[in-house]
Amino acid sequence: MNFPTKLIENAVDQLSSLPGIGRKSALRLVLHILKKDKIKVEQFGEAFIQLINKINYCSICYNISESNLCEICNDSKRDKKIICVVEDIRVMMAIEGTMQYKGAYHILGGLISPIDGIGPSEIRVEELINRVKNEDIKEVIFALSTTMEGDTTNYYLFRKLRQYNIKISSIAKGIAIGDELEYTDEITLGAAISSRMPYFE
Amino acid sequence: MNFPTKLIENAVDQLSSLPGIGRKSALRLVLHILKKDKIKVEQFGEAFIQLINKINYCSICYNISESNLCEICNDSKRDKKIICVVEDIRVMMAIEGTMQYKGAYHILGGLISPIDGIGPSEIRVEELINRVKNEDIKEVIFALSTTMEGDTTNYYLFRKLRQYNIKISSIAKGIAIGDELEYTDEITLGAAISSRMPYFE
Repeated sequence: MNFPTKLIENAVDQLSSLPGIGRKSALRLVLHILKKDKIKVEQFGEAFIQLINKINYCSICYNISESNLCEICNDSKRDKKIICVVEDIRVMMAIEGTMQYKGAYHILGGLISPIDGIGPSEIRVEELINRVKNEDIKEVIFALSTTMEGDTTNYYLFRKLRQYNIKISSIAKGIAIGDELEYTDEITLGAAISSRMPYFE
Repeated sequence: MNFPTKLIENAVDQLSSLPGIGRKSALRLVLHILKKDKIKVEQFGEAFIQLINKINYCSICYNISESNLCEICNDSKRDKKIICVVEDIRVMMAIEGTMQYKGAYHILGGLISPIDGIGPSEIRVEELINRVKNEDIKEVIFALSTTMEGDTTNYYLFRKLRQYNIKISSIAKGIAIGDELEYTDEITLGAAISSRMPYFE
């Protein structure tokens, strides 16, 4: 693409460096940005500069935070003896959205994926083990995706953690609420029958 | 969504203000940005601040430029007596990419669209008429989309310009090169037959 100025090209390069945004879409976005007020565009750019300069990670759970401890680890009403292990803050936000969980979290920052060259040392496994060793932990809940990478990570964590005197659990896998059984895939249906639960009124 | 910090929320707000980016995608992009080096993220933000502060529009054709005249209007090899009227710089860039056109441009900055409340005064129609009046123009070529809005704009411009002693043309409409006729839509096929061209070897 021949850009009329280097300024446009630079902005397009930046936006198209993001996943899922190609150069044509990036140009469309840049032209959209150019139609905004100057002050709005400055705020746009400033938001990312502020973000990277002010962001911090919680020293306990690695949640994103503006201080040394995140809001959840700082909240005296949460049960710090239960740790829910998640891949990233998006999963944590989704679980928080359910309002069903009142324990603490541990943000792994990824899943073990040999095919992508991500081993246990690339994610925060050591930090989780240290928490279980040093804090007074009762239960660790795995809330990882039901994918190959999620299962591998579950299994690895389980082997590392089973030596400690804690309960280890995983979020329930089965038929999604509202799903019709005739359209459910066979693997999920099979797993749901194998891990059937006692029925109660 | 409950964000762990205002910083993330602010960056998500900014990205999701762009067309086609929802809040979930914006969060995914922000988390991707957070994995980059600090200097890269600063460059990302800086690109937009630079863009809005340094950008200029060509005083003749309204192309984006860093100075008062764009590269095309400044190029003595281009034929300034021919003006190709386009919706925005993306179309201009596409036409430049063909290397088939050596005249000047006029960037309208939109198309007439009553349904979106865009009338002739919202786009640079007056500026085009002034160019035809005051410069030594031989031909105006309409290179607008073959949509309702493009056709409306074509027609409006034609009525405004026909009083001047210039040639008015439009880019050819017909079957795209490489298209198979059996899959061409009926309206295009009909138009292509009506505006058939003399065959030459």
